[in-house]
Amino acid sequence: MVRVAVVGATGYTGLECLRLAAAHPEIRVTCVTSRREAGRRLSDYWGFKPYPEDLEILPPEPETIAEKAEVALLCVPHGTAQEMAAELLSRGLRVIDLSADFRLPDPALYESWYETPHRFPHLLSEAVYGLPEIYAPEIRRARLVANPGCYPTAALLPLLPLLEAGLIEAEDLLVDAKSGVSGAGRKGEVALSFCEVHEDFRAYKVASHRHTPEMEVQLSRAAGREVRILFTPHLTPMQRGIFATIYARPRAPEKEIYETLREFYREKPFVEVLPPGRPPRVAEVRGSNLCRIGLKVDARTGCLLLLSVIDNLVKGASGQALQNLNLMCGLPEDLGLPRVPLHP
Amino acid sequence: MVRVAVVGATGYTGLECLRLAAAHPEIRVTCVTSRREAGRRLSDYWGFKPYPEDLEILPPEPETIAEKAEVALLCVPHGTAQEMAAELLSRGLRVIDLSADFRLPDPALYESWYETPHRFPHLLSEAVYGLPEIYAPEIRRARLVANPGCYPTAALLPLLPLLEAGLIEAEDLLVDAKSGVSGAGRKGEVALSFCEVHEDFRAYKVASHRHTPEMEVQLSRAAGREVRILFTPHLTPMQRGIFATIYARPRAPEKEIYETLREFYREKPFVEVLPPGRPPRVAEVRGSNLCRIGLKVDARTGCLLLLSVIDNLVKGASGQALQNLNLMCGLPEDLGLPRVPLHP
Amino acid sequence: MVRVAVVGATGYTGLECLRLAAAHPEIRVTCVTSRREAGRRLSDYWGFKPYPEDLEILPPEPETIAEKAEVALLCVPHGTAQEMAAELLSRGLRVIDLSADFRLPDPALYESWYETPHRFPHLLSEAVYGLPEIYAPEIRRARLVANPGCYPTAALLPLLPLLEAGLIEAEDLLVDAKSGVSGAGRKGEVALSFCEVHEDFRAYKVASHRHTPEMEVQLSRAAGREVRILFTPHLTPMQRGIFATIYARPRAPEKEIYETLREFYREKPFVEVLPPGRPPRVAEVRGSNLCRIGLKVDARTGCLLLLSVIDNLVKGASGQALQNLNLMCGLPEDLGLPRVPLHP
Amino acid sequence: MVRVAVVGATGYTGLECLRLAAAHPEIRVTCVTSRREAGRRLSDYWGFKPYPEDLEILPPEPETIAEKAEVALLCVPHGTAQEMAAELLSRGLRVIDLSADFRLPDPALYESWYETPHRFPHLLSEAVYGLPEIYAPEIRRARLVANPGCYPTAALLPLLPLLEAGLIEAEDLLVDAKSGVSGAGRKGEVALSFCEVHEDFRAYKVASHRHTPEMEVQLSRAAGREVRILFTPHLTPMQRGIFATIYARPRAPEKEIYETLREFYREKPFVEVLPPGRPPRVAEVRGSNLCRIGLKVDARTGCLLLLSVIDNLVKGASGQALQNLNLMCGLPEDLGLPRVPLHP
Repeated sequence: MVRVAVVGATGYTGLECLRLAAAHPEIRVTCVTSRREAGRRLSDYWGFKPYPEDLEILPPEPETIAEKAEVALLCVPHGTAQEMAAELLSRGLRVIDLSADFRLPDPALYESWYETPHRFPHLLSEAVYGLPEIYAPEIRRARLVANPGCYPTAALLPLLPLLEAGLIEAEDLLVDAKSGVSGAGRKGEVALSFCEVHEDFRAYKVASHRHTPEMEVQLSRAAGREVRILFTPHLTPMQRGIFATIYARPRAPEKEIYETLREFYREKPFVEVLPPGRPPRVAEVRGSNLCRIGLKVDARTGCLLLLSVIDNLVKGASGQALQNLNLMCGLPEDLGLPRVPLHP
Repeated sequence: MVRVAVVGATGYTGLECLRLAAAHPEIRVTCVTSRREAGRRLSDYWGFKPYPEDLEILPPEPETIAEKAEVALLCVPHGTAQEMAAELLSRGLRVIDLSADFRLPDPALYESWYETPHRFPHLLSEAVYGLPEIYAPEIRRARLVANPGCYPTAALLPLLPLLEAGLIEAEDLLVDAKSGVSGAGRKGEVALSFCEVHEDFRAYKVASHRHTPEMEVQLSRAAGREVRILFTPHLTPMQRGIFATIYARPRAPEKEIYETLREFYREKPFVEVLPPGRPPRVAEVRGSNLCRIGLKVDARTGCLLLLSVIDNLVKGASGQALQNLNLMCGLPEDLGLPRVPLHP
Repeated sequence: MVRVAVVGATGYTGLECLRLAAAHPEIRVTCVTSRREAGRRLSDYWGFKPYPEDLEILPPEPETIAEKAEVALLCVPHGTAQEMAAELLSRGLRVIDLSADFRLPDPALYESWYETPHRFPHLLSEAVYGLPEIYAPEIRRARLVANPGCYPTAALLPLLPLLEAGLIEAEDLLVDAKSGVSGAGRKGEVALSFCEVHEDFRAYKVASHRHTPEMEVQLSRAAGREVRILFTPHLTPMQRGIFATIYARPRAPEKEIYETLREFYREKPFVEVLPPGRPPRVAEVRGSNLCRIGLKVDARTGCLLLLSVIDNLVKGASGQALQNLNLMCGLPEDLGLPRVPLHP
Repeated sequence: MVRVAVVGATGYTGLECLRLAAAHPEIRVTCVTSRREAGRRLSDYWGFKPYPEDLEILPPEPETIAEKAEVALLCVPHGTAQEMAAELLSRGLRVIDLSADFRLPDPALYESWYETPHRFPHLLSEAVYGLPEIYAPEIRRARLVANPGCYPTAALLPLLPLLEAGLIEAEDLLVDAKSGVSGAGRKGEVALSFCEVHEDFRAYKVASHRHTPEMEVQLSRAAGREVRILFTPHLTPMQRGIFATIYARPRAPEKEIYETLREFYREKPFVEVLPPGRPPRVAEVRGSNLCRIGLKVDARTGCLLLLSVIDNLVKGASGQALQNLNLMCGLPEDLGLPRVPLHP
């Protein structure tokens, strides 16, 4: 059993780590923390038992966490996470950070998008980007994994193999993505209240969302040259799920693109490539760690559409974190992770 | 044209007053106020134009309001409303208070449920309870109308005529009511966030909701004796609407109950009584000022079910306020108020 | 490994059996059937993989089912289920019937509510009512288990121990229940379309729902006398979940009622009794096999409120079926069944 | 008063025509028809009164319609509409067709997308495309108006003035649009059932939706050359609303684009252009005849985003039909049409 700490157990990604850990045969959560809610039991804070053992929420003291756990899942905001990661790494833990703190390898890039200097640039270069379908070997050896953002996960899984294989142009990539509301976290804001979200649809952070550089770094690596994308996030009135509609210029016929993607993901347990013209649905992945990818080349305009769906809290956050944990701990990559959606 | 002030134009009942006033041929909103948002335009605060004229939000100064308007719609919290009502009445305005401040005639009852003394007990006794189907004559002459709560409106419309006619017992009345989320107001609270409300259903303020005494006062008047009810409010994942399921013991056959209700509401423009066994739906009243009432006597247990639906923001708040305003100003009771629902 | 057949794998309860079986360590689904969809793969019908092995859907031939499985979960409509149950029992299978066909022990009662004679009255008297918290010993030995309806599960769990203990009156019981839409099944009907259900709330089958006699049979057994209830089902715009608000007359103080319930369910893995005054929420049980029960005695009217929530597809159907299967096969009662909700 | 027939009063666009007509001071609906529901009252079919006068639904006999009305709103499917239009025009009525039958001027184009020949090609060339912001003079004189599709309305309002002014390229236009479910009509299909739509997000008719050629015809006229677009429609779990995210290559700075749009729509009552960087929301237009347009040039990629929202049943269908009717009948363009949204 791997002893795991969930650092930041009062938000939705922390909660989802607990739910998934409860069904995982080789993980035992031994420590949960929250600065604000320390002293309460998990069930007291949440109102229900998010984990079979009703742990006491501890203050986020690195010393205590290091005593109780081997691996830490950081479910705290960026800025806070980097400090905690440094403390825990120095005490010998392995760390999977679900925040954005270690996703951008270049400190200057981090500073320009997050408007504050990165305090641990040496860790930035050590961190491995936790997209297991691409970086499994590096993740297996990593001390520090930067768990990808939800939007980047949905967009990169279809794009990276195609860019790598040279089957799409590296220019004019558009990512038009639609997210459920849990992506915004557990917050008491009027803009996220039921009355403002239900029966609404909106775009937000138009052309300025911080997941943009994260995608560009990975796309650039795959393309072997600098890639710029236009990324438009939208909020859709559902709790979970991301639907990414991606527009690209193909350099190969639809069939070849399909077969390349299919071949690339043949052995990967959580990515399913659908036949051309069959679009995926968010309902097909809810609650699961799956990513499903559809594609079509529009005969009239010659444009390639890539359609990708994930559950933002699972494959887009906590499920992917446990997938990374499996790899880091030498367990089967798919151990204990759900592949059947909750439907309806 | 009646010149109207909407005091408290930054919440949902204030907003709904503006929407309904915009479609009313004899109302002109000349003044909107908010302590916190004073100085902004309506469209700047709301993000869209809630009223054709893009009025500046003023601070809630009684002097200014009195200069600009003849009638004031108070859409501010209880406690605040009573002060404002007193100020405006003394300056010659007529006041419709959408808060709870003038709904309970007895100051002691107010204090016991609202945990603070009422500061204007003389106005309490002057205030008319603004349920036009029952109190139209008094409302026509009133200076101060206490606009009923949303739950009481839904429950009283079926119950009062039956109690009055002696067709149901005054004992063991149960009101099991389900409300959309806008009834809780425009708030940034985690408990009202989309992620916590969507796909949830909950009871709240069980056996302790402040609309209980309001209903009891009216029911007692109709019964000619003290009536106690058990009222259970629930939150249902929709924006608007109240569905009240009411259980009573009948003292007459179903047919007589039906005909009595039907007769009572024959000339009332906003209450529709459905044939026995035909339940109403919230979708049938959304956006309208209607109340629809269904009923059935269960042959097996002898119990009478009364089912009542309203839009909590219209017949349960702002629409009823304008209906009262119509009466107070000598206009046709139904002038300018919607009877066709927005569906879907 | 228990070899299980899911008879009727194209509706939501069949689907949920597959999802839950996929996470169960001792169940292997070896056979799925559907008259209409026979010949297709599960993934072809559903559009995603509802079970790790992508089984072919077979026609519902008893012979084939008997070859492939030891236990059958019947997820077909009432009327059809009884025939299949008889066929499979005669071939030595054990049967858990999720339909209503074996829930009422008296054929005359069945006929009066289902408007058709029961064709296998001898099996009616053999069938065990599959509420494991009450009938575990009988279920362990049963060949044929009648899996309870969703509404009865939610209502009986709080009521039965109290009636049995004589802590509530057997008269004037009211069950006001609110269900998510999946309870109506997977159907192409205008009345169940998104546009008609979303932002609506309605009552249906008022005082005439077929779950009424099912509850009364069980309540009567517990009370030792004939019990009549008034049951009002409502449709609420969510996919899953039942919230039952139950009104009863207490014969003991709140504290004793609470402690009796708490004691009764102390060792039961799936029922949680909340402290008096703390209402449960549907969100606390979604996707799990839990039932959560709240209670309160209203000091003003002396009435007892019991509030009960379940996921209608899990504890209200397929999860309870697997709980029964666990008992029938000598496995731990809670093996492989989720206790952590999917939230949000 | 203009006497109006609603031909096809049992679907959502027919219903919305009735709701809007009820609030219009110069329209009187004198005739409603439905082949299947003829003989019933409107309130009997709908379950509520969609129009103050509870008209009898008549069979769609041209003779009868011509006796009762001057203008006909055709809310029947394409294919059926063209026949009815021809019959009514020949009897002297003016016709606004909400179906797709007269939107494509070229019969061959119609045939290639609708897979059946157009039976009235001479009417195709007479029909005026009913986008009042562009074709008001022609609409005023028209006998036959082809009311635009919902997606085209949302996409064309931002695009046409910019193409006309040469401020965007005519190539590589992408329209990524998200629609509420009422756009699919009132249907009993599993795919449109609450359980399949709620908490889902999906794309449909990818690169093959029939609104594509409708947009291209109009864009080509404005550009003075043939324009091809890629249009991707999505279904989002809400009842009403379209959000169109449009990607284009600008030929002028953001400021000029903004000012051009703003200037173009200055006198138009139903189109609002928001300042650069301020995205619109569907909630801002629900129930109203408004279209709100946002825009932004992404400095990093040089791409222009146009964001456009409408209520698909109002500005995208029935509201636009009444706006056309106003013009055809010499009434003020905005008479009786809502500009204040229903929010929440």
